[in-house]
Amino acid sequence: MTLDIIGTIESCYPDKFGIPRQPGLAPSATATLRFNAPFDHPDGVRGLEQFSHLWISFVFHQSPARWTSLVRPPRLGGNARIGVFASRSTHRPNRLGLSLVELVGIEYDPAPILILRGHDLVDATPVVDIKPYLPWADSAENARAGFAPEPPPRLDVRLSDECQQTLSARPDGESLGLLIREVLSQDPRPAYRRHKRDERGYGVRLHDLDVQFHIETDEHPGAHESVIVVDRLIRMT
Amino acid sequence: MTLDIIGTIESCYPDKFGIPRQPGLAPSATATLRFNAPFDHPDGVRGLEQFSHLWISFVFHQSPARWTSLVRPPRLGGNARIGVFASRSTHRPNRLGLSLVELVGIEYDPAPILILRGHDLVDATPVVDIKPYLPWADSAENARAGFAPEPPPRLDVRLSDECQQTLSARPDGESLGLLIREVLSQDPRPAYRRHKRDERGYGVRLHDLDVQFHIETDEHPGAHESVIVVDRLIRMT
Repeated sequence: MTLDIIGTIESCYPDKFGIPRQPGLAPSATATLRFNAPFDHPDGVRGLEQFSHLWISFVFHQSPARWTSLVRPPRLGGNARIGVFASRSTHRPNRLGLSLVELVGIEYDPAPILILRGHDLVDATPVVDIKPYLPWADSAENARAGFAPEPPPRLDVRLSDECQQTLSARPDGESLGLLIREVLSQDPRPAYRRHKRDERGYGVRLHDLDVQFHIETDEHPGAHESVIVVDRLIRMT
Repeated sequence: MTLDIIGTIESCYPDKFGIPRQPGLAPSATATLRFNAPFDHPDGVRGLEQFSHLWISFVFHQSPARWTSLVRPPRLGGNARIGVFASRSTHRPNRLGLSLVELVGIEYDPAPILILRGHDLVDATPVVDIKPYLPWADSAENARAGFAPEPPPRLDVRLSDECQQTLSARPDGESLGLLIREVLSQDPRPAYRRHKRDERGYGVRLHDLDVQFHIETDEHPGAHESVIVVDRLIRMT
């Protein structure tokens, strides 16, 4: 079986590091999908504007082609091992990904360009299918979802004064501020770092910014509360 | 890009004709999924039993490899044309399908066999991925779904006395009767036949049976009501 790449994602996430681990966790995330020839005829998306949400089937192109039967999901702290087919890990046979995204609009250049929100796709992701979301066929009531019954917990995010000023000076400052908070509240650090004292600095790239942050942890007897503190926003050129 | 077939479906639907056009429309439909080597290690599904529903990514292997930008969805009566990416048509680039199915259980032989319900897959469908369904990431509230906002309408189904007797004589008669009603209530006929007088006989294969039916239509002034009448259940050998 061979697959054609029907289109390519241009994403607010230049790097894998920091991307929320499912779509919808960062509703302010934006992307465009441009079609490759011969899939780029405007006829192909006729009527698609009637749908608010789409399934994007894509390839985890940055993941290695090798896979293993067992993976360690971050949700389980990075220690417990479960089957690759019981996970949404990117290290899977065929490296196929699936994301439910919001369709904001369609532009024509004259080939169609889909304007997407709430995605979890790294820049340059190759797309292999697009389907409209059908609520009555694509959702299950009272579904049991094992070790991931709810969205992952969120941390509080605090922006330094310097960051607030950088954002205020930009026309896209408000949406960018939302995106920074949504992404960092997921705690992008590797799972094994989460439950120790951690004094290092981290950076997540969002749009043209390197978002630099560190963790502040209050340790009370029997409690351990972390806050993400954003120190600086460095413009990448 | 190449795709490995990780497993194969054994289905209550030996033929394409009659299969409901989305999963969940016939909850009594049953199937098993057997893994192909080297994807058949029991480790690969460890923990999967904690999930009630799965996504199956598969190939519409009976559809032709050629595709067109525009398709005529049965939902629109088979006349109006919409973009292939605004549809769930099987005549699509890469022929990838996506179905949400219920996971009833897992057996081991010693390779795992997934027991599925509520699917819409023809026998021998090649599977390329399995993912657990995550309700908080895989469903959208208040989604707009254009020309398919609700499940398709259903017709009443009436079974002849002969059919009732055939079913009573079988140990699986009750579940088979449910499946027959669920499948035929979708009106499997081509869309262009639906709004005319139609006296021909049809047959849908379910498990080992050829389910033979015809349509009875009451025409009142301004109304047109069809009932599916099941005449005979022929055992196929």
